[in-house]
This record gives sequence, structure tokens and C-alpha cells, in this order.
Amino acid sequence: MIYLDNSSTTRKKPFCVLNAVLKATWHSANPTRSSHTPSLNAALKVYNTREHLKSFFNAPKSANVVFTYNCTEAINTVIFGTAKKGGNVVITAFEHNATFRPLNKLIKTHNITITIVNPNSLGEITSDDILNKINDKTYLVIVNQTSNVTGSTVKLNNLGHKLKQKNIMLMVDTAQSAGHEKIDMQSIGANFLCIAGHKGLFATQGIGALILNDANVEPLKFGGSGSNSLLTTMPEYYPEKLEAGTINTIGISALDAGVGYVEKHLDKINSKVEKLSNILINYLKQNKNITLYSSNPHSGVISFKFNNLDNNEVCNTLNEKYKICVRPGLHCAPLIHKFLKTEKTGLIRVSISYFNNFCEIKKLIKALNKIEKNHN
Amino acid sequence: MIYLDNSSTTRKKPFCVLNAVLKATWHSANPTRSSHTPSLNAALKVYNTREHLKSFFNAPKSANVVFTYNCTEAINTVIFGTAKKGGNVVITAFEHNATFRPLNKLIKTHNITITIVNPNSLGEITSDDILNKINDKTYLVIVNQTSNVTGSTVKLNNLGHKLKQKNIMLMVDTAQSAGHEKIDMQSIGANFLCIAGHKGLFATQGIGALILNDANVEPLKFGGSGSNSLLTTMPEYYPEKLEAGTINTIGISALDAGVGYVEKHLDKINSKVEKLSNILINYLKQNKNITLYSSNPHSGVISFKFNNLDNNEVCNTLNEKYKICVRPGLHCAPLIHKFLKTEKTGLIRVSISYFNNFCEIKKLIKALNKIEKNHN
Repeated sequence: MIYLDNSSTTRKKPFCVLNAVLKATWHSANPTRSSHTPSLNAALKVYNTREHLKSFFNAPKSANVVFTYNCTEAINTVIFGTAKKGGNVVITAFEHNATFRPLNKLIKTHNITITIVNPNSLGEITSDDILNKINDKTYLVIVNQTSNVTGSTVKLNNLGHKLKQKNIMLMVDTAQSAGHEKIDMQSIGANFLCIAGHKGLFATQGIGALILNDANVEPLKFGGSGSNSLLTTMPEYYPEKLEAGTINTIGISALDAGVGYVEKHLDKINSKVEKLSNILINYLKQNKNITLYSSNPHSGVISFKFNNLDNNEVCNTLNEKYKICVRPGLHCAPLIHKFLKTEKTGLIRVSISYFNNFCEIKKLIKALNKIEKNHN
Repeated sequence: MIYLDNSSTTRKKPFCVLNAVLKATWHSANPTRSSHTPSLNAALKVYNTREHLKSFFNAPKSANVVFTYNCTEAINTVIFGTAKKGGNVVITAFEHNATFRPLNKLIKTHNITITIVNPNSLGEITSDDILNKINDKTYLVIVNQTSNVTGSTVKLNNLGHKLKQKNIMLMVDTAQSAGHEKIDMQSIGANFLCIAGHKGLFATQGIGALILNDANVEPLKFGGSGSNSLLTTMPEYYPEKLEAGTINTIGISALDAGVGYVEKHLDKINSKVEKLSNILINYLKQNKNITLYSSNPHSGVISFKFNNLDNNEVCNTLNEKYKICVRPGLHCAPLIHKFLKTEKTGLIRVSISYFNNFCEIKKLIKALNKIEKNHN
């Protein structure tokens, strides 16, 4: 079986992650809920992982790390927790429904407006494109750093610092970029990084994170915080303010291990993913029956379609006949599909991980050739 | 090390749970996000776990199972998703901050009122006590089935059916009761069961569930649902409506295994937990320097305090000198502590799991005796 749907969830995890999961499950305890040794050990693991994430993303010392169920929850927390009545939010056409749907809710409840930054003819969006779209009412800019459809990456430069001058906050959705890009929160000047554990960072599902700096966020959920139990609301300090109920120590341990792995191997990951992606991109480019929508081998995300075939059917054949797993459809990203005019057909998305190999990409190309030939 | 803080998180998990966690991590894939085999296998696992939970809790066929991050999220989803301006919610004094804090938020945003049902002189709350408190504005009743402080269990009987006649919904928080009580959703007539994975059901942290029946709930979070990507809101059908973003297939697999284990061993679990609890309860009852607040051996939750000692210090000594882990403080349950007038001192809570043994309880009793003696 050849798994090329790593943008949904990386299938193969490094052994250090499996080991961390097993160890944390075997040593289950509730961090910050008691003063006994297993609870303190769990709390230490959680604390160290917060510090690890801050160092990995070069977050300022003053930043706080909040653990969430997934990246979607981190994004929802920021969007609902900073909502401003009648305000404007600038987003890119790369945004996922994790951003687009909560904003649509705010249109109804808070009368906000959304401004969408579309890509240029090369499929790219620049910081300047984003800056050009802000208006007097803009209070928040949201950028999905790497499109989960085209794989195009927004070069953020120091966007957050420029926005700060206008009192505008910046949230970066790193769901597809973390584990591929070197992300420097301080250079970017972002107020929020939203993080998915189970993709490029090789952690398990059920864990995400929000790093926040120089911004206040109202809680989305309320519950036990392990301290100040007599308070009728969440404590005002972070991370407790945004972490209601028992957190996922097992997922957090997996994230710690996964981030450690990426930290150590990022150059190798980039080099391999680029090499494998380029092989596929070159093939797709020269096939005149195919339209290619991706040109960034760095991200490992490559979307395309056969001009004369049902692309859902192609994916089914890849799975059934060749045991190759890719993802058809709209990838929960309606804006970019509408922009590309592919919202009716969808696209075939191949997403490559460090754990894929040359042979697998060759087999995919062979299979695509055969499917095309059988159809003609 | 003797772990007696199982109401926070059960430390020891059955091997089938460890096995499920490892298998699911090794076979990571995103359920309902693609049509390839690993994704379909993950979706099948998730579907089967939903059915398993329905059967375990004897939920009606029409009920829906939604997976959440933890029980707190399930409770928040119900409270915010059914909020009624100016309405009244009846709760018990057993409620956890997972319920009390979101309701306090609704007092501010929706002008609701809360009515609290206190226990009788035996520390018990009956269905009739609850029914007696409802008023014309009551739209929701919330019952924490087993207090996480006293271990007292509310006999729900057919409370939900009676409330339904008055158009009032019933939510049952099973965080401490699931895995100890046989819970029959149909007999109770509950609209909502909120479930914690990592306690009596022996699953991992990072997974909870909400079973809902005959009720509509607005989403708390918005994001990718794997289908209908062009919709600007969540789909109207369950579970998709309430599951934004990637769900925790690994936690779900653990929950499936844990529930299977409890299903098979419930009688043995009850018998052992009762036996061990009774040994401790009998000791605590006859110690005149101790006030005991628990009388339900079935729950495994036993809280008490030394009348003349600093009970936090006792817990620290238990941990440091005897390597015995119990939980001091308020247990995120301010209402019952206020009722018991223990909100200043807190209580020592011992919580017993099926995986504890006779020897451990004897050692705890010995340690408590020694601490008492050393103090005198």
C-alpha cells in the first residue's frame, strides 16, 4: 500500500512518537490536577512541551502555548475569542473551512465583513497583497501559510510587525506548513500560530496547539482548570484560561516527540520531500492531458486533474487497483477551488511525507499512465 | 507507588486499550476525509465505536454519538448549543465546574437563571428533589450522576421521561459514573449523555463523547466536516454538525477497547471496587479524628478530612513518604464543597479503580494511622 495522503494525516510516524504514546498511556496521570508524583510528572511533560513548541517556532518568551483538540479548535478559539462587532477580517483564498466557517458564523452574530486575498497568476499570495487589502475596520488578518490544495506558501516576512503598527492582529494557520517550513514567530510578528499535531509534526490525532503573544482571547469553553476552583469563570491567566477540562497528555507527549524529530531532521525532510515532489511535478507538467495546480515542491502538496477523466474515479482506481491512497474532492477548502474553478470536479491531491520513497512515486506515475491509457 | 487518584484519570489501562492505541497510531489515517482504504478503515472503526457506545449505554437507535476532546467539551456543547434567553436550568450541587462555569457564562450572555438542588442529610439527591425544583422557565436539567467528591450517585429512574412531558431536556454528566454504573439512556429518557474517556472507561485522555437523542444542538466549533465543503456552515446532520476538524481516531479506538473491557467485566469491577472501598470506609468511619463524606462504595470515590490536621499536608506526606497518590483540594466542584462547608480546607479524596488491590488499601490505612500518630 502506498500512502500519499499525508496532508490529511501523516500515516507513518517516527518510532520516537510511538514510544512516547505508549509511555504516556502506560503512565497516565492528570497534569496540574493533584500534587502527587505522577500528576507532577505529567505536568512537567506538558510544561516542557510548551517550552519545546516555543523554541521550535521561535516564539517570544512572553508567548503562551495552549493545547487544543486540533488545529480547527485553535483557529475557532482565536476567531471567536477576538471577535469585534462590525469589524473586518482579511483572509486569503487559501483558507480552510476551519477558518472560513467560523468567520461566516461571525458575519451573522457580529456583523463582521470578510475580505479575501486571491492568488496571482502563479498561484501565489504575497505579504503586500495582504497589506493592500486591509481597511479601517480590519482588526484581524488570517493567513493559511501553505495551501492544503495547491501547496503554495505565503512568504510572511515581517507581516505581523507591519500590521501591529495599525493595531491589527495576525493569525497564521500552520496546519500544512509546520514540519515543512522553518517558522519564526518573532520575525513574522504573529500574534497567533495555530498548529495541527497529526500532519507534518508527526504527532497523533487529538492534539493541536495555539501559541499566542501580545493578544487577549476570550475562552470558547469553560470548565475545570485545576486551580481557583471557586471562581465562576476561567482564570484570567494563560494557558489555564483557554484549557477547560483534562488535556490530552498522550497527544502532548506525541507532539513533543514529533517536534523533536522534525527539529533534528528538517533539512533531510525538506530535501527528500522536494526531490520526490519534483519527480511528480515534472511528470504532471509534461502530460498534456493533465492540468497541474501546484509548483511548490517544498510543501509536498501536489494537486492536478485529468482534463478528460472523472477525477474521483481516477482516485478510486488508484486505491482499488494499485493500492495508492490520494485524496480527491475539495479538501475542505472551498475558496481556492472556487478561484481555480475546480469546485465542481475537485482535484486529485497527492501529499508526500518524509517517509515516502522514490519507488512509490514511480509507481504512482506508472499507475496514472496506465489509467490514462486504459481510458483512451 | 500506589495510585488512588483514578477519578482524575485511571492510571492503569487494560492491555486491550494499550494495544488499540498502538495499532491506531501505527495505522493512522483520517476517517471520512478520503475514499481510500486506510481512511475507510478508520471511518469504520469510528462508526463501530459510535454503535458500541450506543449499545453500551442502551441509547435509542435514533440517537447520535459525537466525539469530543473531553467530557467538558461535551457538556459545553450541550449548554451553549441549547441556550435559551431568560430560561432556567436546574442543576445539582454535585455539578463540576465543567457545568457550573459555562452556565455562569450563560447568566451573563443569555440572562438565564440557575436553580441548585442540594443533597439531603445523607448526602443524597433523588429524582423527586430535582423534579420539585423545576419552574415554568426551566428548559434544561443537568445531573452529575455521581459526585466526584462524595461519590454519591443520583438514582435517575425515568427522570427524563417525566421532564419530557414538561418539554424540559435532561443532560446527564456520566464522567464519574460510566464504568461503575450500568447506564440505560432509554430507561432514563435522557436527551444527552456526556462521557469522559479517560476515567472509568479506561480510554486515553483526549477523547470524550456526547450521545444525543431527540434534541437539537447548535455547534460550538466550525470547520472542515469532510463533506459538503461548499457549505459556509456546518452540515445540519449529526455527528458532522458537531465534529469540526480531524477527530481523534486513536482516542476513539482506545475508547472502543475500554468500553469493551468494562462491558465484559462490569460485575467484577463493581464487586472489587465495592470491596476495597468498604474496607477504607469502615476504617474512616471508626476513626474519631476523621470526618467522612462518602458512603457509596460502588463509586470508588471516598472523601474525608482529618479534623485536626492540614489535609493538603497529609496528601503531601502520603505522596512523599509513602508513595501513595490521592487528591486534595476542591476537585473542581465548588458547589458541593460549599454545601459541605469544606471550601476552605478541601478534602482528601481517594478514588479506587478495578486495578487497585487489597494490599494497597491496607497500606493507605497504615500510612494514615502513622501520619495521625506522628502528629499527636
